[in-house]
Amino acid sequence: MRLVRAAVISAGRGYRIPSIVNGRGEAATATGANRAVTGAFALQCRQPSKNRTKMSELKLPTRGEDFSEWYNQLVLRAELADYAPVRGCMIVRPYGWALWENITAALDRRFKATGHVNAAFPLLIPRSFIDKEKSHVAGFAPELAVVTHGGGEELEEPLVIRPTSETIVGHAYAKWIQSYRDLPVLINQWNSVVRWELRTKLFLRTLEFFWQEGHTAHATALEAEAETRQMLDVYTDFAVREAAVPVIPGRKSAAERFAGAEQTYSIEAMMGDGKALQAGTSHNLGQNFAKAFGIRYLDKAGVLQHCWTTSWGLSTRFVGAIIMVHGDDQGLILPPRLAPFQIVIVPIFKTDAEKAIVLENARRLRQQLVDAGVRVRMDEREGLSPGFRFNDWEMRGVPLRLEVGPKDVAKGAAVLARRDRPGKEGKAFVPQQGIAAAVGRLLEEIQQSLYDRALEFRKANTADAADYGELKQAVEKGFASSWWCGRGECEAKIREETKATMRCIPVEQPGGGGKCVYCGQLSSEKAIFARAY
Amino acid sequence: MRLVRAAVISAGRGYRIPSIVNGRGEAATATGANRAVTGAFALQCRQPSKNRTKMSELKLPTRGEDFSEWYNQLVLRAELADYAPVRGCMIVRPYGWALWENITAALDRRFKATGHVNAAFPLLIPRSFIDKEKSHVAGFAPELAVVTHGGGEELEEPLVIRPTSETIVGHAYAKWIQSYRDLPVLINQWNSVVRWELRTKLFLRTLEFFWQEGHTAHATALEAEAETRQMLDVYTDFAVREAAVPVIPGRKSAAERFAGAEQTYSIEAMMGDGKALQAGTSHNLGQNFAKAFGIRYLDKAGVLQHCWTTSWGLSTRFVGAIIMVHGDDQGLILPPRLAPFQIVIVPIFKTDAEKAIVLENARRLRQQLVDAGVRVRMDEREGLSPGFRFNDWEMRGVPLRLEVGPKDVAKGAAVLARRDRPGKEGKAFVPQQGIAAAVGRLLEEIQQSLYDRALEFRKANTADAADYGELKQAVEKGFASSWWCGRGECEAKIREETKATMRCIPVEQPGGGGKCVYCGQLSSEKAIFARAY
Repeated sequence: MRLVRAAVISAGRGYRIPSIVNGRGEAATATGANRAVTGAFALQCRQPSKNRTKMSELKLPTRGEDFSEWYNQLVLRAELADYAPVRGCMIVRPYGWALWENITAALDRRFKATGHVNAAFPLLIPRSFIDKEKSHVAGFAPELAVVTHGGGEELEEPLVIRPTSETIVGHAYAKWIQSYRDLPVLINQWNSVVRWELRTKLFLRTLEFFWQEGHTAHATALEAEAETRQMLDVYTDFAVREAAVPVIPGRKSAAERFAGAEQTYSIEAMMGDGKALQAGTSHNLGQNFAKAFGIRYLDKAGVLQHCWTTSWGLSTRFVGAIIMVHGDDQGLILPPRLAPFQIVIVPIFKTDAEKAIVLENARRLRQQLVDAGVRVRMDEREGLSPGFRFNDWEMRGVPLRLEVGPKDVAKGAAVLARRDRPGKEGKAFVPQQGIAAAVGRLLEEIQQSLYDRALEFRKANTADAADYGELKQAVEKGFASSWWCGRGECEAKIREETKATMRCIPVEQPGGGGKCVYCGQLSSEKAIFARAY
Repeated sequence: MRLVRAAVISAGRGYRIPSIVNGRGEAATATGANRAVTGAFALQCRQPSKNRTKMSELKLPTRGEDFSEWYNQLVLRAELADYAPVRGCMIVRPYGWALWENITAALDRRFKATGHVNAAFPLLIPRSFIDKEKSHVAGFAPELAVVTHGGGEELEEPLVIRPTSETIVGHAYAKWIQSYRDLPVLINQWNSVVRWELRTKLFLRTLEFFWQEGHTAHATALEAEAETRQMLDVYTDFAVREAAVPVIPGRKSAAERFAGAEQTYSIEAMMGDGKALQAGTSHNLGQNFAKAFGIRYLDKAGVLQHCWTTSWGLSTRFVGAIIMVHGDDQGLILPPRLAPFQIVIVPIFKTDAEKAIVLENARRLRQQLVDAGVRVRMDEREGLSPGFRFNDWEMRGVPLRLEVGPKDVAKGAAVLARRDRPGKEGKAFVPQQGIAAAVGRLLEEIQQSLYDRALEFRKANTADAADYGELKQAVEKGFASSWWCGRGECEAKIREETKATMRCIPVEQPGGGGKCVYCGQLSSEKAIFARAY
């Protein structure tokens, strides 16, 4: 874990990523075959037909005008996701799924490097399982999707579609774990779960969502707490280094805890409108589920003990965070390490003679980039102006654009345009010789600069709110960092009166103490308050 | 596609795999981090506690005694899967899931190399969708799991958990596809589906199973048929080259077609008991779903046309095929290209002094193998005899075992034991110098030899059955290859009287013609008849 912790610590100071090009080649996703995926996406990123051309020529609302509508339209237009026929469900389209696949690969590497293995538990759970842990049933019963019929007959016992898997995993662990030699059990699964949400929004809150859920069992309370914190660190490291999303890792209040947990930790990120988004959670379940499901082991002395368990998850919600942290009025800006395409090549020509020369040159450049492990998309669409194509790829958030026309070919040069710096400032004429190295450097710079910018934005919109008046003002535009006594009454009042919730008690504390922002009682910890998604 | 076709063709003649060590390192799965996964599995492959030690010392039934019980016990003992609390559902345990992850990676590479992209469609489908295509509803209605309540209230329209996704994909494609420029759409998804099966068996037939389902839309009938056949070739190539499972690609009869398809193709494999297993299917759906869901496009002439669609899937059933094709009375034999661990190192020592020397040596060997891209498992368990550990890993099907004791260390040698050749015949003393190259070569040999052996077995148990008497005899122990008139009446009679079904009309035909094995009518195609899973 030294690596992960180091990264977490360095996140506060700014960080360096080792290398942006990671041998993935032209692939849109970490598992894609190098050569062919550009072809695949070229086929699948649809040639705009007339209707769509007009639609996508309409301007997005700016973020200032209507942040929520900017988000909704952008998700649809960039073809990240679409509404499903069932209320509140979403279809994750190929471009969005490629982004999610890159997220999953980056997380899965970290899970395996910290000793976890994957497995798959069933999606159907007996209804009675949910009732076995009393906080759990209170939390999840209202959100269940219930299967009452199967194979044309009414079931004797209704089943639920998993809203999360602690219960069914607990049932299995009770069977599998017998001795201290069996511990720890460190299992993760990638799947989808269903929670009957009323207000939904693509990626942020959907009836069905995609995620990973880790479930571990340990011999001691200490180990379980260490695991819970380790996974919080893993999420922090992922957010910072892969998604360029600065996050605040911290502890939730009792009111915001996972149903059945002793302690919940989360990473909290500031979106472009100043609101908070909980982007990943890690729960110490104590012995609650172990007692409810009888997960026990014989210790070295031959005494039967209950295990200590944890669970932790990060979901497609994170895609929403990436959109809202980095996006601008032109559309998405995807962090290079996760972007399905790190660079798009736009060949520019008018005549057939130019076309032959430019395409030959562009394909050669593409091959050089692919060979260097860059994920490349070539835009060979015809009948669309360069301006239209530039805007289209800017809207889709591709970090870099390479433009090449007949004059560039003649000069052995090309234009590289950074998505994160619009207009002339982000454009550079570069020699074609050594293009792959130049692209690699620029991608690293963009990744770093996205992180720095987001961190700056969060700092600029976080106030050290010493009194309640300041807190009220702060949460109008961002985060308030305030001393808090830890009592649920103060937390509830603040929520009621300001619509801001206690996001977390950051792991990193200034030390010392101060007066609770609401009741004035002396307290030793600062908390983050914000309105949240 | 040239590569894939070439492999398919060469499959008939015996084939060579390019390289068994594929840069995956020590990882149990293609996405695992090199170094850590051995540690992960070391933690997760549980140290047998006393009870389990006794249990696993019990002998498996032999395949000859009771093939079905051999299979059931082996799946549980090797910890590939376990029964779930809901009847007919399964938990895929880490060892089984690592195998499935390697299968998914091998297929996903092929899908992407043939131009496909991944996406995710929701698991909940309005009940009414299933009714829109009339053969589809007839096929799937009896097997549906129905959600009638959500969020504590009865739903206005019941939802079903997808039994397959043609309907919801059709709905989306109707919205997304407008012009010939949008075609083809080539999307795949990895997920699970639910079908209310009555007789279930781990991996082979479960209520919920894991699979991929590809869904494509095309402008012409010709293109759709080419796609259908291409994916049949992809499955064949995967089965032969990755799983070392010889398969017969062919066409299904009308009676065995997918509900809603114009044509269904499958790959059929012979299991160790001579029965057939359908191991992957590819469907040409014609315009059936396009008409039911209004998937239309404007062609170049501006005329509105219905699309032609396909779908194709391969599921966790394939894990069952691997078990039943390669396994022997000692347990699993996993093909090196898919095995979670390609080699297990078993250090052997008695005293503490020996332990220090042997472990140091074993770890150095492990590192050499990891560096060469081999997936390695180190068995450092203590208090278990070498014999017990050998049997344990043999049961789990690890293709190679490396034994190293104090004398070996002194000599700079080690023992390599092949799983596919039990006893002395499969053991070799090798110098430690150059161990990685020796292991690489042996893994290739094992992969090839598993394929050859399975092909031999199929040949030995396939009879050219010229008359009905011969067919009846042949299906008692394997496949019958017979002329068939193509009429459903003959097929039904054969099924009724022999319990053998028409598995497929192989793509590869001898040419010429002969008399239908049942009715004697002249026919031009041979078909495979067999009892099947």
